[in-house]
Amino acid sequence: MIKDRAAIVGIAESRFAKRLEASESELAASVVLAALDDAGISPAEVDGLASYTMESTPEQELAKNLGMQNITWFGQVGHGGGGGPATIGQLAMAVATGQCRVGVAWRSRKRGSGKRIWADRAASAQLVTAANWSRPWGVVRPVDETALLTQRYMHEYGITRDHLANVALACRRHANRNPRATLFERTLSRADYMAARWVSKPLCLFDNCLESDGAVAAVITAADRARDCRHAPVLIHAFAQGIGPQTHSMVNYFADDPLAGTAATCAAALYARSDFQSADIDVAQFYDSFTPLVLFSLEAYGFCGRGEAGAFSDNGALEIGGRLPVNTAGGGLSEAYIHGFNLINEGVRQMRGASTAQVGDARSCLVTGGSPVPTSAIILRRDNA
Amino acid sequence: MIKDRAAIVGIAESRFAKRLEASESELAASVVLAALDDAGISPAEVDGLASYTMESTPEQELAKNLGMQNITWFGQVGHGGGGGPATIGQLAMAVATGQCRVGVAWRSRKRGSGKRIWADRAASAQLVTAANWSRPWGVVRPVDETALLTQRYMHEYGITRDHLANVALACRRHANRNPRATLFERTLSRADYMAARWVSKPLCLFDNCLESDGAVAAVITAADRARDCRHAPVLIHAFAQGIGPQTHSMVNYFADDPLAGTAATCAAALYARSDFQSADIDVAQFYDSFTPLVLFSLEAYGFCGRGEAGAFSDNGALEIGGRLPVNTAGGGLSEAYIHGFNLINEGVRQMRGASTAQVGDARSCLVTGGSPVPTSAIILRRDNA
Repeated sequence: MIKDRAAIVGIAESRFAKRLEASESELAASVVLAALDDAGISPAEVDGLASYTMESTPEQELAKNLGMQNITWFGQVGHGGGGGPATIGQLAMAVATGQCRVGVAWRSRKRGSGKRIWADRAASAQLVTAANWSRPWGVVRPVDETALLTQRYMHEYGITRDHLANVALACRRHANRNPRATLFERTLSRADYMAARWVSKPLCLFDNCLESDGAVAAVITAADRARDCRHAPVLIHAFAQGIGPQTHSMVNYFADDPLAGTAATCAAALYARSDFQSADIDVAQFYDSFTPLVLFSLEAYGFCGRGEAGAFSDNGALEIGGRLPVNTAGGGLSEAYIHGFNLINEGVRQMRGASTAQVGDARSCLVTGGSPVPTSAIILRRDNA
Repeated sequence: MIKDRAAIVGIAESRFAKRLEASESELAASVVLAALDDAGISPAEVDGLASYTMESTPEQELAKNLGMQNITWFGQVGHGGGGGPATIGQLAMAVATGQCRVGVAWRSRKRGSGKRIWADRAASAQLVTAANWSRPWGVVRPVDETALLTQRYMHEYGITRDHLANVALACRRHANRNPRATLFERTLSRADYMAARWVSKPLCLFDNCLESDGAVAAVITAADRARDCRHAPVLIHAFAQGIGPQTHSMVNYFADDPLAGTAATCAAALYARSDFQSADIDVAQFYDSFTPLVLFSLEAYGFCGRGEAGAFSDNGALEIGGRLPVNTAGGGLSEAYIHGFNLINEGVRQMRGASTAQVGDARSCLVTGGSPVPTSAIILRRDNA
């Protein structure tokens, strides 16, 4: 078991913007240095590296550029935003089994100023994924794939655009308290939401995450050592990943239950390894490339029953003071979209008591990766919580 | 520690050939099924998947095609042949920490009939790797990069082509005992070796691995459960990976010590976690995309001193009956080149006592990944050895 044996001891992020001048490699290096500085640990002590398969900076480039010495564990996780929490979880495994002592996970990405991956039709067509069965019919962008799923969800359970707006508004209100958020100064009203243009019906502009340039990193070490670091340790309490029996690369419309997703598999494994169950979670950072994913996650991770997330989200439940504040830095929708990694750092800030939208006595935080792609999740907790 | 807590309980490989008709995805599926059958475990029980980042079949495709149900751990390792043993080691970590119970690692690759990756100049140029500093000067293929390194090695230490031939001949003689080997029926003499055409001087045809189509898979589970499987368990005793302080993607000619490579980092971490030191290793499967890598590995993993591997390799030391039989199925040079994964399966056969070139009482086997790319290694042992 990895339970509470490793902790996040340092975090950092770059400035978030639509366009940054630095390269992805430069952003990665600077943010990893800053996270190590936050931990008070030298780059020469790093011996573990975890990243996304989509990361453009190879491990050895980062290591060489920062003066790391001997890396004895490194691994990658696929599936884009599905893999974020897994980079932390796999480093926790490496620390727990003695494969490394100080690990760094990071994501650096210029999706704000860089290419939209689906815009390169030739490259997309070469990917051997089940999505190629639907792309020729116009389901090209991730938002198109999610829109079809959302349509089904709304039809089955009476979910409305007001429910989707609950998610967008919660994220924006949290971003409005976070000076690092891209949309810190931009308020959003329900009327704004309802008047916004469609991107892929039933999803409007404000159901979509930002397109951001930026980088985020976190430093992990053993719980014992963590207690000697600058900040109170944030323990990695539980970790799981999930691929279900009928998973495609994005959405499987042909599954027996298209709405089941991968999060159900992940959640079951996560809670089986955790002292905290859904009723014990104080704050959550849900992967939010699109608003409906937050509703799906509320159900998959057991905060309400199937089809009940719309009602659950009413009356400010997802905002500070509500039943389950989510994405308290603004999330992918309003802080920045760095493939979900910024959600991890916000989870750490909540456990440090240092969020700009702090949930007063929060002792446990759930952080999830994207679904219905292959996904992952971690539960963070305060030390001696 | 993962020490002896997980075991390899099933192995399988496809036919190896220059050209196979089946796709990489089909080969992957069939070989994973066969490995599970070897273990006596149903696909529905698999909950962990480990693969190379270069693998073309995504985890969820394999899972869906084979009727796997809920995958709760999955990860990938980069750097091609450097990552093979790490796929096994990372599954051992996942089993040891309870993240999964039955894991499958595999590699499926049609490099025999498919593209040579360096032939696509446009794609190569897009890779952000340090090799792009040397490629414009004609150091294009992996064999070119290795040839320069070998030239330096021969110059520094008086290594000769006869020493390189020792490696090629040992592998071929072992392949001549292995009916699955591509070159089972093709003998090789020292005179043949000396007369062969250059591929990249000082490396001749027989210093180069095969270009193979094929797939290989292995099944891992906890040691306790392994003892109830069909075959005697082969314990995963120790595991490490390695990136050194000045590592490039392939060879770093600008390093303080270009011959140091990544294996030294990996070896130090491996032996620190192992009850077996180099003197205790009975048989080794060394990554052998090119013959000199075997000599480098003999030194890095402590079987002889720096510059001494040439002399060590004389008098049949690398063959059955010698001090350290290597690549007893023929290796990448003469069995098949499946990015090194077939070396893992041969290590398992040696520990089962089932190799066609069995080292009589072998109780421990070292299996290494490629270097000087970021690398990995495992030590396998017989149960109750």
